[in-house]
Amino acid sequence: MADPSAPSWPRTVTVLAGGIGGSRFIRGLLAALGPGGEVTVIGNTADDMRLYGLHISPDLDTVMYTLGGGIDEEQGWGRSDESFLALEEIRAYLSSSGKVGTLDTWFGLGDRDIGTHLTRTALLEAGATLSEVTEVLCRRWQPGVRLLPMTDDDVQTHIVIEDPAAPDGTRRMHFQEYWVRLHAEAPAAAVDIAGAAASRPAPGVLDAIATADLVVFPPSNPVVSIGAILAVPGIAEAVRATAAPVVGISPVISGAPVRGMADKLLPAVGVDTSAAGIGLHYGARSAGGLLDAFLVDSADADAVDRLTAAGLRCAAVPLWMSDVEATATIARHAVSLVDPAAPVSA
Amino acid sequence: MADPSAPSWPRTVTVLAGGIGGSRFIRGLLAALGPGGEVTVIGNTADDMRLYGLHISPDLDTVMYTLGGGIDEEQGWGRSDESFLALEEIRAYLSSSGKVGTLDTWFGLGDRDIGTHLTRTALLEAGATLSEVTEVLCRRWQPGVRLLPMTDDDVQTHIVIEDPAAPDGTRRMHFQEYWVRLHAEAPAAAVDIAGAAASRPAPGVLDAIATADLVVFPPSNPVVSIGAILAVPGIAEAVRATAAPVVGISPVISGAPVRGMADKLLPAVGVDTSAAGIGLHYGARSAGGLLDAFLVDSADADAVDRLTAAGLRCAAVPLWMSDVEATATIARHAVSLVDPAAPVSA
Repeated sequence: MADPSAPSWPRTVTVLAGGIGGSRFIRGLLAALGPGGEVTVIGNTADDMRLYGLHISPDLDTVMYTLGGGIDEEQGWGRSDESFLALEEIRAYLSSSGKVGTLDTWFGLGDRDIGTHLTRTALLEAGATLSEVTEVLCRRWQPGVRLLPMTDDDVQTHIVIEDPAAPDGTRRMHFQEYWVRLHAEAPAAAVDIAGAAASRPAPGVLDAIATADLVVFPPSNPVVSIGAILAVPGIAEAVRATAAPVVGISPVISGAPVRGMADKLLPAVGVDTSAAGIGLHYGARSAGGLLDAFLVDSADADAVDRLTAAGLRCAAVPLWMSDVEATATIARHAVSLVDPAAPVSA
Repeated sequence: MADPSAPSWPRTVTVLAGGIGGSRFIRGLLAALGPGGEVTVIGNTADDMRLYGLHISPDLDTVMYTLGGGIDEEQGWGRSDESFLALEEIRAYLSSSGKVGTLDTWFGLGDRDIGTHLTRTALLEAGATLSEVTEVLCRRWQPGVRLLPMTDDDVQTHIVIEDPAAPDGTRRMHFQEYWVRLHAEAPAAAVDIAGAAASRPAPGVLDAIATADLVVFPPSNPVVSIGAILAVPGIAEAVRATAAPVVGISPVISGAPVRGMADKLLPAVGVDTSAAGIGLHYGARSAGGLLDAFLVDSADADAVDRLTAAGLRCAAVPLWMSDVEATATIARHAVSLVDPAAPVSA
């Protein structure tokens, strides 16, 4: 059942994705590609954590739930039709016992969501890899993409903040604690993708980059989402080496993140919180960077010349992913920017 | 606030308890003792298991929920006002993926109950002992007793059944799988309290037996509940050595268990499923056994002579724990059977 409105190119697309922004973009990309498209998503797992004994993979779940129709649309993460009885019980224990170790309830763990974490944890404890577990979970959700974790190894993003009370003046914490518990309110002094150096790409990841018709960096967080994926040895090299064009979509509009709090983390890696800053951070493949093209919002049209001068094909179009059709249009713009049949200057 | 109806003796009572039968008895015992009573419960932990990464302590939870007012009264285990969304999700994953490893959903895990397991698992993973965790959980439930796990070590009851398809003709499984999944339908060929030999009593357990005014074996399963507790080295010896009288209450009426399926397991340890059989299995302390006295149901009055001849003080009274007051009466009968002020022959 061919969709006559779908482009004939690209057929296979590989996307490096974080959570909400990445998932919403992919939904539009799938709509743009139509039934002939085959999308592989390389998901960030550096946000994963163990909490109450559960193995939680926030970004993989957000992709899976969003594309599989199980997401809480309003919130952008977690399950629809959710309840929070287990969390309520944990709170009741904590309020009776006072502070107990590091146990806390800042992570919004719903009962249905717990069902996913229990299944994942049980399978991991039985010896399955995260890739295998993700495949099992996706059999149910049928997200319409092949979802691969970036790695089956343990990689965790740690954020370092200043803490005058600490012996060395800093405090290090898991990204989720910084993001969810502290609402990223303290400036991040450093971002450490801990464990990345020793990790290996999960099965299929490098092939998916090498054999795609197109590789996309969706509007995900450049530091802790796409940055974490690129920190797995071999992945950035595969992006640099692939025969496919690589296109990025700015996650920032007029200097503010479309979604999330990327502005809190970009300074920690020395990147200006602007479309131009992020495009230059990724850099042009022709100059040893990662991208062939970068799509910025119409409000950031003044960045186009600077990015073009740096070797990136660039266009400014509306980037608000207000609904699936608007997002599909963004995806079509991204594709046309690197369409082999299109002129070099967009 | 003294209760004039409460006996002046005993003040401190230590109970070796399994789940439902033990909990219900203790509720009556507390009512019988009144506010002056101090009850320590040594709970069976050999039913504990890890499931989906959670540490589940079914018997400790049943005691805690029953005495703390959180139990599902109808069912006798699990939480009141419970929902099962997480389990529903696990079922959905399994029905999409087919058989995945050993993952299964035979254990009825409610969402509120999961909150307890998550709290326990998190605290254990942070390095707390099961004793410490149990104390934290009880701060909330205020069960009115001091609840001690029999051990902080890993002890698991395994049931061996005949299985012609297996290489050696038998199959071994965790007690919960036998009890809950297989409904104890296959006869148990053997019961193994695995890990017991290397385990140590949890802090406070031996003291509670040694210093009590009275030690009670409530109508819990003699094999997998009280039997498992007694399998921890030192506990049976403490029962034999305590200065306190030790009284048991038959869990069987007219050859059928009051609750549960003890009849499935007694044959495996060579014990007749009858009040007399169980009383003789425990044995009289005067003859190297564990009990000074044993209370049987009125329907089993014909066992009294045989048990008395074996050295046990014995009486036959109605043992149906139909409500708290009826159970308090049973507890008073048990107390009077070994009351130091009472005549030797009941």
